Amino acid sequence: MRFSLTLLGTNSALPAHGRHPTAQVLNIQERQFLIDCGEGTQMRMLDFSVRKARIRQIFISHLHGDHFYGLIGLLTSYGLNGRKEPMEIFSPAGLEEIIEVQFHPSGGGLPYPVKFSAFDPDRPQLLFENSQVEVHSFPLLHSIPTAGFLFREKDRPRNIRPEKIEEYEIHFSKIPSIKQGADLELPNGRFIPNAELTLDPPRSRSYAYCSDTQYTEDIIPYIKGVDLLYHESTFCDDHKDQTLVTMHSTARQAATIARKAGVGALILGHYSSRYKELDCFEQEAKEVFSNSVLGLEGREYEIPLKKD
Amino acid sequence: MRFSLTLLGTNSALPAHGRHPTAQVLNIQERQFLIDCGEGTQMRMLDFSVRKARIRQIFISHLHGDHFYGLIGLLTSYGLNGRKEPMEIFSPAGLEEIIEVQFHPSGGGLPYPVKFSAFDPDRPQLLFENSQVEVHSFPLLHSIPTAGFLFREKDRPRNIRPEKIEEYEIHFSKIPSIKQGADLELPNGRFIPNAELTLDPPRSRSYAYCSDTQYTEDIIPYIKGVDLLYHESTFCDDHKDQTLVTMHSTARQAATIARKAGVGALILGHYSSRYKELDCFEQEAKEVFSNSVLGLEGREYEIPLKKD
Repeated sequence: MRFSLTLLGTNSALPAHGRHPTAQVLNIQERQFLIDCGEGTQMRMLDFSVRKARIRQIFISHLHGDHFYGLIGLLTSYGLNGRKEPMEIFSPAGLEEIIEVQFHPSGGGLPYPVKFSAFDPDRPQLLFENSQVEVHSFPLLHSIPTAGFLFREKDRPRNIRPEKIEEYEIHFSKIPSIKQGADLELPNGRFIPNAELTLDPPRSRSYAYCSDTQYTEDIIPYIKGVDLLYHESTFCDDHKDQTLVTMHSTARQAATIARKAGVGALILGHYSSRYKELDCFEQEAKEVFSNSVLGLEGREYEIPLKKD
Repeated sequence: MRFSLTLLGTNSALPAHGRHPTAQVLNIQERQFLIDCGEGTQMRMLDFSVRKARIRQIFISHLHGDHFYGLIGLLTSYGLNGRKEPMEIFSPAGLEEIIEVQFHPSGGGLPYPVKFSAFDPDRPQLLFENSQVEVHSFPLLHSIPTAGFLFREKDRPRNIRPEKIEEYEIHFSKIPSIKQGADLELPNGRFIPNAELTLDPPRSRSYAYCSDTQYTEDIIPYIKGVDLLYHESTFCDDHKDQTLVTMHSTARQAATIARKAGVGALILGHYSSRYKELDCFEQEAKEVFSNSVLGLEGREYEIPLKKD
């Protein structure tokens, strides 16, 4: 029942100091989701033993190259590895053409189905759901249309107390509704409240990803109370003047968003290549929000399963 | 007066075992030429401290992804680094569209001039020359149109012997023609043969690059006698049956070409990802041509300046 994030690339557009452009893998109950895909993502997956065959959905936040240049290589390698399973790619419009044109000269293509699902980054929407998780997009404030993503586990059914099944001779046909919270009516007309019959399930976990954005409190409603927030922090305070020019954030601004949104923990990343050392990011973020950590490549950040 | 080759990527299409897709930098007298540009080339340049600002020409052998997927990232990073100098890219037709379309969604582009020079890989031609070097393409035998490249230093002028200038009171206006091999006519009508006036210059050096090809002796006239030959060797003998299916070569075949072409040394590369260890490549090549070496990433192969 794992819920964990592995960072593959933590730098901004220019690779430097051993850091790479943005890519992340989110593992939710052994299903892997790829989030952005900068150049070299497939090599970083090899470096960190990511089980890439388990990825069925890729989410691209925006079409600046440092967030998608690695996609063509990854998709090609899947094909060379014999992949047959379909892949779905969610991104702002334009990506399908970019991928397709690269196969024109060789007359090739991919030997497995790829579905491009273009979405409008400027309005929030539900992009994907399965039995375990929902993925929503929400608008960020950047120089081109850019989305953040919210991954949220669906609520689990309540846990029925086995001794109550025996005590009230509950028929198995009634168990699904009780797990969903229904009360029980006994043959004698007496009502047993659900609270007596069940225990709270583990609570659902959530992760919000804010790739490239300048400081904006407009995103707070979308990310409020998530367990884990990644918010870009391209600069430290010493280059705060760059944030409005480039439409990026400082670590302190990322931490301010984290604090105001009441998140569990903040991961920093998208560091400008002008910084070789990252101390200022962590220090300045912690001054505002103590549960801030540096995003580091190859590091896995786990959200344990727990009850409220 | 350096002439050296640095390998950035030595694997075939799938990156594996710490090896990367094809890219090489050829340094001729401190001018750098990039040959092919697989994904991650810009990171490999950082790894090996390649002075990439000195690259003004890029040569792409064919449009299979493992030979060009790294180009868009490299070109973008040049722009972010403030490059203003023009770049010229030689490749089979189709590459310009691939690069351009990737800037459409962001409405961006490159802040320096890029000239795409499409050439026909199916016929040999002179692609580029400056005062020091000529670069020729020649056809290889692969599943899509693919070119090899021949880099050859131009002949240097002959070295005039200083004592002869004094002895024959040679006017400075005559020196350029003597350096080109002309004899000298003295005022008294006597002829002094050039061989008395000059010494041999260092001989011109040459490198031939055969990226992806099955065994074909048709390439021998183009690469005959080069100092250094890179010839792909995707397989060892154990998978020789794959060479005709995939249109690649074995190490033994590469060495056979090297021997028949009378080259100085052979560098192997483009190893299939099925091989973790490379011993069989070197061993089988050396059985045919003793001056064969494994191409290894980050290794620099130098051709010293020497006289015949």
